[in-house]
Amino acid sequence: MPKQVDHRERREAIARALWRVVEQRGISHLTVREVAREAGFSHGHLQHYFASREEMLSFAMDFASEQSALRVARAREGLGDPPHPRAMLRLMLTELLPLHPDSRATSRMGAAYVLEALHDETIHARAREGLLQGRDQVERLVREAIADGHIAPDRDPVVETNLLLALSGFTPLLELGVLAADDVLAAVDHHLDGLFAHDAGA
Amino acid sequence: MPKQVDHRERREAIARALWRVVEQRGISHLTVREVAREAGFSHGHLQHYFASREEMLSFAMDFASEQSALRVARAREGLGDPPHPRAMLRLMLTELLPLHPDSRATSRMGAAYVLEALHDETIHARAREGLLQGRDQVERLVREAIADGHIAPDRDPVVETNLLLALSGFTPLLELGVLAADDVLAAVDHHLDGLFAHDAGA
Repeated sequence: MPKQVDHRERREAIARALWRVVEQRGISHLTVREVAREAGFSHGHLQHYFASREEMLSFAMDFASEQSALRVARAREGLGDPPHPRAMLRLMLTELLPLHPDSRATSRMGAAYVLEALHDETIHARAREGLLQGRDQVERLVREAIADGHIAPDRDPVVETNLLLALSGFTPLLELGVLAADDVLAAVDHHLDGLFAHDAGA
Repeated sequence: MPKQVDHRERREAIARALWRVVEQRGISHLTVREVAREAGFSHGHLQHYFASREEMLSFAMDFASEQSALRVARAREGLGDPPHPRAMLRLMLTELLPLHPDSRATSRMGAAYVLEALHDETIHARAREGLLQGRDQVERLVREAIADGHIAPDRDPVVETNLLLALSGFTPLLELGVLAADDVLAAVDHHLDGLFAHDAGA
């Protein structure tokens, strides 16, 4: 179905143009008109692919999440089979942070998406769903690591999962140059060392 | 000098109007025109108080930080003299999170300000300076707590300070209803319990 493929490709090209607008100029410039210009489409042509700004933004966010999941899956291959849960959690957490250009673009998209969500019910529901799914993945890893003796059995998997997710709070500190990448990785590693301090399965 | 007072009061009234625009409608509506309308000023009259959108935004952020510091100072009075460093850190950290209407407004301003900073050098420098000062305050408390035996002497004050600041990462999880206030407070308390586990001065 070449027509379908073409349609998907065009939507992805528009999503990438949207990322560039968000990353280079900021969310206050994020209009359908601005994205059309960046993508080299006419305003009317772009509306053929996305009926509204919200639809365009949600697609761009979903596509960013897919790309992020692909990066994690590729990096996972280098971690052994199955990967140690500490290494897997470290990989997932550092992918959330603006530590390299790809994850920085996704991170900026995410921050813009959360701010939009506060004033748009549809985006709120989708953003919430995405975060809940990510949270579930982390909690599953934490529970498995407890069951397998990598994390001490007296640790509360819910609280530990929530603390791991909170580490995404390094984002503004990195973006504003308050902390360097090395500072952040040292802190992430220290936190993981504490969590895996009694690793019986190492 | 009533004229000076009046000028300051008008600027604060405009700053509060700006907060309402950011909180209720979002940063994509944050224009001088929109703030003027919310404040009940003409566009020209508002420009008498702020020469540019950036100047207005920076003043609104500084004023939000001042209000936040006042709330912390007021709450500190209920903590004993001197307050226990664990209680003081908990107070400062929870003030960063959107757990009550005032801190939620400041938190949304802060998130919008960080996104603006990515595309404006002046705002970047000011936002960075504000975060560095906040970070210094937390590090000073952590170092004192180590010196006073509240935190174990083998803890690295820099890493511990950075991990405490990262807890601001609960913000999007609260804003999108992924976690409830109780979940977040439980996680913050668990983290502080770990940090103060060997409190010799309790």
